[in-house]
Amino acid sequence: VNFVEVIAKKRDGGELSNEEIGRFVRGATDGSLGDEQLAAMLMAICIRGASARERQALVEAMRDSGARWRLGEVRPGVVDKHSTGGVGDTVSLLFAPLVAACGVPVAMMAGAGLGHTQGTLDKLAAMPGFVPARGREEALARLDRCGACFAAQSDEIAPADRKLYALRDVTATVPSLPLIVASIMSKKLAVGASALVLDVKAGSGAFCKSDEAAAELADALVQVARRAGVAVRALVTDMNQPLGRFLGTANEVRAALEGLAGRGDERLVGLTVELATEALVLSGLAEGEARERLRRALADGSARQRFDEIVVAHGGDPDPARLARPRRTVIVTAPAGGFVGRVAAEELGWLAVSLGAGRRRQGDAVDAAAGIEVHVRLGDEVRAGQPLATLALGERPVEVEALAVRAQRAFTLTEEPPPLPPLVRARFGGST
Amino acid sequence: VNFVEVIAKKRDGGELSNEEIGRFVRGATDGSLGDEQLAAMLMAICIRGASARERQALVEAMRDSGARWRLGEVRPGVVDKHSTGGVGDTVSLLFAPLVAACGVPVAMMAGAGLGHTQGTLDKLAAMPGFVPARGREEALARLDRCGACFAAQSDEIAPADRKLYALRDVTATVPSLPLIVASIMSKKLAVGASALVLDVKAGSGAFCKSDEAAAELADALVQVARRAGVAVRALVTDMNQPLGRFLGTANEVRAALEGLAGRGDERLVGLTVELATEALVLSGLAEGEARERLRRALADGSARQRFDEIVVAHGGDPDPARLARPRRTVIVTAPAGGFVGRVAAEELGWLAVSLGAGRRRQGDAVDAAAGIEVHVRLGDEVRAGQPLATLALGERPVEVEALAVRAQRAFTLTEEPPPLPPLVRARFGGST
Repeated sequence: VNFVEVIAKKRDGGELSNEEIGRFVRGATDGSLGDEQLAAMLMAICIRGASARERQALVEAMRDSGARWRLGEVRPGVVDKHSTGGVGDTVSLLFAPLVAACGVPVAMMAGAGLGHTQGTLDKLAAMPGFVPARGREEALARLDRCGACFAAQSDEIAPADRKLYALRDVTATVPSLPLIVASIMSKKLAVGASALVLDVKAGSGAFCKSDEAAAELADALVQVARRAGVAVRALVTDMNQPLGRFLGTANEVRAALEGLAGRGDERLVGLTVELATEALVLSGLAEGEARERLRRALADGSARQRFDEIVVAHGGDPDPARLARPRRTVIVTAPAGGFVGRVAAEELGWLAVSLGAGRRRQGDAVDAAAGIEVHVRLGDEVRAGQPLATLALGERPVEVEALAVRAQRAFTLTEEPPPLPPLVRARFGGST
Repeated sequence: VNFVEVIAKKRDGGELSNEEIGRFVRGATDGSLGDEQLAAMLMAICIRGASARERQALVEAMRDSGARWRLGEVRPGVVDKHSTGGVGDTVSLLFAPLVAACGVPVAMMAGAGLGHTQGTLDKLAAMPGFVPARGREEALARLDRCGACFAAQSDEIAPADRKLYALRDVTATVPSLPLIVASIMSKKLAVGASALVLDVKAGSGAFCKSDEAAAELADALVQVARRAGVAVRALVTDMNQPLGRFLGTANEVRAALEGLAGRGDERLVGLTVELATEALVLSGLAEGEARERLRRALADGSARQRFDEIVVAHGGDPDPARLARPRRTVIVTAPAGGFVGRVAAEELGWLAVSLGAGRRRQGDAVDAAAGIEVHVRLGDEVRAGQPLATLALGERPVEVEALAVRAQRAFTLTEEPPPLPPLVRARFGGST
C-alpha cells in the first residue's frame, strides 16, 4: 500500500492500523517518508484526532524508534516525574532530592528550555560544573551514587519524536492531544522508569488553558502509561500564576534551596510534596507513611543534604555563593491599590526570557543571573506603590523601562478579591 | 505574522484573508515556504474547505504566480475548452478544427497525459512531426495561421500550481474542490482566452464519480471564471463508459478523423457538437445558428480540412497512413450472453496504459500503436462469444492473457438492460 493511501485514510477520519502507524513512525525515523508526507499526516491527525488504540500504537512505535534504557528493569522502583511546563515551576529541583532522601530512586530526562517556561537542565547549569548524565551508563552510575539522576535528552531516545516535533513546530500541529501524548510518553517510556508522576498544568501560564483540557490530557497520559505497564499518577495543578515566587535559573536554584531548608514558598513546596507523595505511594507506601517520611526529610535536613550530593554527583558545585547575582534589580510597583485579580503568568515567563533567563530559539544563550521575583499572589490586597515584582537584570542589555511597564501590566488589580482555585485540581490514576 | 499562524487559522476552520492566501502562493512559487508548511496547509484546506472568496483569491494568486498570456486581449473571441479527464475522450481533436472552421479561434494548452486518461498532446504527437506551440508568440502565430493552436504546458504559466500539484500528489490532497478548481482555473486564466467551455465528467471513469460531485465542481469552476471576467459554460457529461470507441493515441487520431468526416462514433461526435455549440453561443451566435454552422462544417468537409491545416501549422503530417499500427490485435469476447450492464471505464483506461498507450509515471514513453477499441456500449445486448473489445498491442512486451482477462472483466453482463443516463447531465453558466 502506498503511503498516500494511509494519509488519505486519516484525512477522511478513518482509523489507522498499527502497521500503518508503524510505517509513519519508521518514515519519520529513517527518512523513508518526505517531510511533506509527514506534515500532511500530522495535520490530518491534528484535525481528525486519533482513537485510544491509535494513540497507544503511536506512542509505542515512537518509543521503539530508538534506544530503550529500561531503567526500571535494572533499578526496580525508580521513579520519573514530568511536568507539562509552567512558569516558576522549580519542582524538579526539589522533587529529586526529597524523594531520593526518602529512599526512592529518581531518574529524570530533560531538554533545554524553549519558550516561556525555563528548562530544568538550564536551572541545574546555573551551578558551576553541573553536567547532566549523557547516556544510560552515566545515568545508572549517578543513580547508584546519589539516588537520583538528571539526564540530558539523548539523540538515541525516541528519534521519531525529535523529527516529528520539529515538523509540528512549523506546521501548526503542536496543539493535538494524540501528538502531545505521543511526544511526552514516547520519551518517558523509552527511559523506562518503573513509576511515573505527571504534573499537568492548567491555566493562563500553561499549554492547557482550561481545567478540562488539562484533565483530558492527564487522563490520556495515564491511560497510555498504564497500558504500557508503568505505574502512574497524574495531578492537574494550577498555573494561573507562577508556581513559586522566582523565575530564572540561578533564582530558581535559590528557591529550591530555600524550599528544601523549610523556608520556601508554600505553593512550590506544597505541590512538590503532593507529587512526591504520589511517587512514594506508587513505590508501595501508604499515603500517611509517605507524607510523614517527606515531612521528616524536609525537617531533618536530609532532603537539603541530598540536593548537594546530587549536584556533586553531577560534577557541580552546590555552594549557593557561587550562583550568579543580578547586575542590577528593578522594582515594579502597583500603580493603584486593590486585589491581585489576575496574573498573566505566560507573559511573566516571556518577560523572563526577554531579560535573558530563557530561550526564544534553540541555541540562544541563557543568562543565569536574569530573572524575576514575584512578590504578590493572586488574591493579595496591595496598596499603591507596593512592590509587585523585582526584575533581575543580567549581562544582556535590555530596555528596562519597557520591560517594567510590561511587568506592571502582568498584574491586574481588581476591586474585589478573585476566587482562589485550589492548587491541585484533580488526580488521575489513583485506582491502578 | 508568522506563517504557522496562517496554517493554524485554516486548521481551525477559519477563513484566510487574500493577503494570507497570497503569502501561501508566493511561498509555493519562490520557495520561501518549505514543503512541510505547504503540505500542512494543503491538508488543512483539503479537510476544512475554502469559501468562494478564498477560492477566488487562491485561483487569482496562482494565475499571477507566473506569466499571463492574455490571449483574449490580443485575439478577441478566442475560446478555450477544458475537460476534467475521461477515457476515450477524443473531443479536443475534433473540437478545435470544428469550431475554428466555424470562424471562432481556439487555443488550448495541454500537458502530457498521466494516469488512466490519455493526454491530448500525446494523441497529437502520434502524427509525425507534430510539435505543440512553446510560448506565447508561437501560440499566437499558429492561431493566426490556422485558427487554432495547441500549446504545451509552459513552465512560465502558473508555476505555483506545478509546485502545489506535485505536493498534492504525494500528500493525499488531490481530492479537494478548492484545490482542484485552483489548479484548473489558474492555468486557464493565465492563458486568458475570452471564453471557456468546460466538460466536467461524471461517472466510473472520471475523477468525479457522482453527478452531484461533478455538478458542484462545474458550478465552482463557472463561478470562478465569471468573477475573473471570462465568458464560460460548463457541461456535466457521462463518463460511465469510454466516450468514444477508441483508446490510445494513434487510435484516437483515427477516431477524430472519422468523426470529422461524418462517420464517427455518435457519442463522441455528439458531445463535441454540444461543447462546440456552447463555444459558438459564447462568441455571440444564437443556438440555432450555431448548430446549423456546426452541421455544415461537418457536412461540407471544412472541419475535416481544418484538421489537416492545424496539424500542418504545428509541423505535423496529417496523412492517416503514417499513423502507427498495432503489431498484433487480440479480440476479447463475451463469456456469456446478456446486456452490457456496467463498463469499468477507469479500468479500461488503466488497461490501455498497461498496453503502452499512457503513462504511469512522468517521463514514461507512450507507444502510439497501443490502445483498445471498444465494440459494445452500455445497454447493448450481446451473445456469448461476441467481441467486446480489441486490444491493440504495440512494441511493449505485455502479458496478453492477463490483460485479455482484465478487459473481459471490465464489462459486466446483466440479465436486464441497465438504465441509460443521458450523455449531457447538466449545464452551468447559461445565464451569463
